[in-house]
Amino acid sequence: MISKSQISFIKSLHQKKIRKEHGLFIVEGLKSIQEFINSEYVVDSVYCTENLMPKLDNLSRKIKPVGITESELSRISALSTPQAILAVVQIPQQTDLNIKKLDGSFILALDGVQDPGNLGTIIRTADWFGLNTILCSKDTAEVYNPKVVQASMGSLSRVNIIYTDLGDAFSQINIPVYGALLDGKSIYETDFGQEGIILLGNEGNGISEYLIEKINYPITIPRYGKAESLNVAISASIFCSELRRKT
Amino acid sequence: MISKSQISFIKSLHQKKIRKEHGLFIVEGLKSIQEFINSEYVVDSVYCTENLMPKLDNLSRKIKPVGITESELSRISALSTPQAILAVVQIPQQTDLNIKKLDGSFILALDGVQDPGNLGTIIRTADWFGLNTILCSKDTAEVYNPKVVQASMGSLSRVNIIYTDLGDAFSQINIPVYGALLDGKSIYETDFGQEGIILLGNEGNGISEYLIEKINYPITIPRYGKAESLNVAISASIFCSELRRKT
Repeated sequence: MISKSQISFIKSLHQKKIRKEHGLFIVEGLKSIQEFINSEYVVDSVYCTENLMPKLDNLSRKIKPVGITESELSRISALSTPQAILAVVQIPQQTDLNIKKLDGSFILALDGVQDPGNLGTIIRTADWFGLNTILCSKDTAEVYNPKVVQASMGSLSRVNIIYTDLGDAFSQINIPVYGALLDGKSIYETDFGQEGIILLGNEGNGISEYLIEKINYPITIPRYGKAESLNVAISASIFCSELRRKT
Repeated sequence: MISKSQISFIKSLHQKKIRKEHGLFIVEGLKSIQEFINSEYVVDSVYCTENLMPKLDNLSRKIKPVGITESELSRISALSTPQAILAVVQIPQQTDLNIKKLDGSFILALDGVQDPGNLGTIIRTADWFGLNTILCSKDTAEVYNPKVVQASMGSLSRVNIIYTDLGDAFSQINIPVYGALLDGKSIYETDFGQEGIILLGNEGNGISEYLIEKINYPITIPRYGKAESLNVAISASIFCSELRRKT
């Protein structure tokens, strides 16, 4: 059973302001919720329709789901086609930038990526390629937006997202900065070595002027056809693939 | 000036059924519309707000835009943030599968890709990497859906999309079929030669059983982390990048 006030509270978590105020966000879909339960995140509550309940044996040892009707689910869900189960999860305290931990690894840095789907897809792709940290400029989309969580397909439970001033962060982290630009060295001819920051810019405007100065290696994905640019999540994935191929 | 009945007609083109009935679809944004005007597509009409009009010198030599108010635009637009200009474009007759033309090239084949954003991003990426043909199974998302057109960022004007039975098409086209699977040879160790079909499956279910039999080379993007899968547009882009790197 779920009360009317609970329904309206969970629904209010679709808004950034309310998420921030209460330190809570929504995760939907069984697989994603299981991954959050098995992660360092704290799952506050789980709401589930009756027909999915019997399939929750493993889940329910750790947390007791609340049964709800499909109509109640559709009211709290942020999806156009709700997935029978929804969890409310605590937003963790942001990890401080631990510079020593980042030595010897590859990390992504996103400068003002705006589209929630792009951010979620980048998190999922980073997780596939074993990149565990993403630095985001403060004007990047909010990672607990339901569309980001959905597109990340559970990978948000494993990838550390740090919102920070990227210029300051680059000064502190003493590893090379590779910038995705339209006029750089071909990515296919680039040796990424053993560590680095891959910097990607905003969908429309690219990388900010003040960050371009901080790039050690401007890198380009060569164009063979006529499209004017690549989607930022696509660029990120080709960088991840190329650096893993070579290391 | 735009009449009420024109507004409601253009708005009705948001629906697949009406697009199909009238053979028309919507393109939004100045850059995309310019690319369609400069392509083989026939642009039927262009609607534009007054503040953009002075910037349309080049465009208007070819076609005379109709001035509309922002409020009228918001009624005919399929975007949450309309982009000052909208065109109604004719759906071309589908090109027949010209097998000889496909010899010696790389083409993508999509088996039931459902998400319009994924399809549009795949078209844009194919265009970047110079792949000019995409075969789509008949249950793939409709390419004239406004979300597909938007995500393709004008590239739809250059990439030839053919809806067909993929099994039959593969039998007719006598070039190797590379299938994106979770248990194949590493893409980094694959020699793609000079031609081939890259087959990618549905977001949730992958490639259909009957098409798996038609795959000559099962190929995998190696996983270095913990995500369960990659987004299909991301997989497509890594295939495009790898085959261009090698050829």
